[in-house]
Amino acid sequence: MRKTSMRAKRTVPAVIGLDLGGSQVRLAFITPKGQRAGRILTVPVTDRGLKAVLTLLVSSIQRLQSDGPCPAAIGIGIPGFIRMDEARIYRSPNFPEWKNVPIRSLLESKLNFPVLIENDANAAAFGESWVGCGKGLPSLLYLGLGTGVGGGLVLDRGIWHGTEGLAGELGHITVDPNGPICGCGNQGCLESYASATAVVRNYMEKTGQVRPGLTAQDVGVLARRGNQKACAVFVELGQALGVAIADLLNIFDPERIAIGGGVAGAWSLFHKPMMDEIGRRAVRPVRLNEKVRRSLLKNEAGMIGAAGLAYRHVGVKVF
Amino acid sequence: MRKTSMRAKRTVPAVIGLDLGGSQVRLAFITPKGQRAGRILTVPVTDRGLKAVLTLLVSSIQRLQSDGPCPAAIGIGIPGFIRMDEARIYRSPNFPEWKNVPIRSLLESKLNFPVLIENDANAAAFGESWVGCGKGLPSLLYLGLGTGVGGGLVLDRGIWHGTEGLAGELGHITVDPNGPICGCGNQGCLESYASATAVVRNYMEKTGQVRPGLTAQDVGVLARRGNQKACAVFVELGQALGVAIADLLNIFDPERIAIGGGVAGAWSLFHKPMMDEIGRRAVRPVRLNEKVRRSLLKNEAGMIGAAGLAYRHVGVKVF
Repeated sequence: MRKTSMRAKRTVPAVIGLDLGGSQVRLAFITPKGQRAGRILTVPVTDRGLKAVLTLLVSSIQRLQSDGPCPAAIGIGIPGFIRMDEARIYRSPNFPEWKNVPIRSLLESKLNFPVLIENDANAAAFGESWVGCGKGLPSLLYLGLGTGVGGGLVLDRGIWHGTEGLAGELGHITVDPNGPICGCGNQGCLESYASATAVVRNYMEKTGQVRPGLTAQDVGVLARRGNQKACAVFVELGQALGVAIADLLNIFDPERIAIGGGVAGAWSLFHKPMMDEIGRRAVRPVRLNEKVRRSLLKNEAGMIGAAGLAYRHVGVKVF
Repeated sequence: MRKTSMRAKRTVPAVIGLDLGGSQVRLAFITPKGQRAGRILTVPVTDRGLKAVLTLLVSSIQRLQSDGPCPAAIGIGIPGFIRMDEARIYRSPNFPEWKNVPIRSLLESKLNFPVLIENDANAAAFGESWVGCGKGLPSLLYLGLGTGVGGGLVLDRGIWHGTEGLAGELGHITVDPNGPICGCGNQGCLESYASATAVVRNYMEKTGQVRPGLTAQDVGVLARRGNQKACAVFVELGQALGVAIADLLNIFDPERIAIGGGVAGAWSLFHKPMMDEIGRRAVRPVRLNEKVRRSLLKNEAGMIGAAGLAYRHVGVKVF
């Protein structure tokens, strides 16, 4: 009898997924099946200092918690290089002041449940392979086309971190060795063609006009209206993506490559040149439409994936 | 008493490693510690037809066996695409007649011990991570600079095969999207700069002279004697390797990258330009001299690695 009543009381564990971006925090309860339970809470980041962000994270989590159950864990996706062994943020482009920050222990001292930290693109890769465009597949490579180009590798159902947690820098694959100089020091990185920053810069270069405040989305609108120079920016973006994706297919022979991030919204503007380029360059160009897909979870991929990793962290098998 | 005497009788298992190349077969007994036991038997391949090669393999194995113990298994490295689930050779550049050949079952019907088949570059990668230049390291990427450029990926101490066994096509990483057209259909593949074939072709292009019978080794000799055009071929080879290796470092953050194959004999001719290029292009160019190494097992890497995989195949833990 006792056993039965214990079982009846046992509730489904609840985990929070949180995506920390440079301009906002988004978080929600995620079920063990990868579904969102309840609303997404979105909070703007106004001060990027460490203390301010920590306070913001804790207060956001507490606000979400006031609506729901006590979480079994929280998974947090953060842009930047993370040392997984110590859950430290080594360096983050969005939070330049943060150096070698032991983010997990700082947060765990303020929360009464375990914290799992992961690079945001890795978390998105995991989300897409868990319940997204590569649902249940053992291998998935993720390209996140945002302000920069991030990447994440899911191999054998787990994230490949590399020796120092720096694996998956897919934005810095060389597309053209003589191409534009990138912030990383390399020339002709994928990021120089396929990030939101690159879309704006490349459009302004083609028109020869500086247009303050212009966004990648604006360039997309211009292209859809038939602006030839804006269209050319996305054709070149598709070609550059095609070179890098053919490399990834040749290197990994993966089940799926998922393309997400804000720039993926221009999918119809770059899809054909991208696929043509892959078809020309992949060693075995078969089932390409099945292998190369747009992200399904879109801007929830990182949040959902971080929650999935947090489930694993506390011993709940998710897939 | 009985137990003790059983134990005393138990012998160390013996496994044969075999490397099947387009022009010769080489095989030897390899110990569970990755050491060669006894001589290497080398047999020329004069007829590349399936029946002839099968007969040659069986007779070579029997010749080696006559000197040694009864092997517990044999591991065979073969150039070409191998479907690991069925141990079939799907396609091999060196044996163009072979299509979809169930090599393992054909051999097992003639031998009285288990056969393990692996792509030759994968086997070499495993060999280098087992007892070679990356001894005991959990991740190692191998580039074999031979007639073509092969590749193998050891991740988490095992070979990454990909969905269809086609992973590790590192020779077809794009180095320059507008470079020379490769046999695979792509342009500017690493193979177009870093294979023995490319060394000869690039030297003849620079001199404007066709020289029948010239080998990559000959070009190496010319370069060492100070021939400027021959030197330039190896500088460009190093730069192309540098572009591809920087990609691999950015993608995998591996413990080690091993460079083998015949062309690696020209190490001193291309090492500096290669390392300079990697230093310029890798996102985090640290410990490069530790990470990028010349193969230690040289032309025994595939044979030794195949034996290591055969040990695993019969349940002997090698590392």
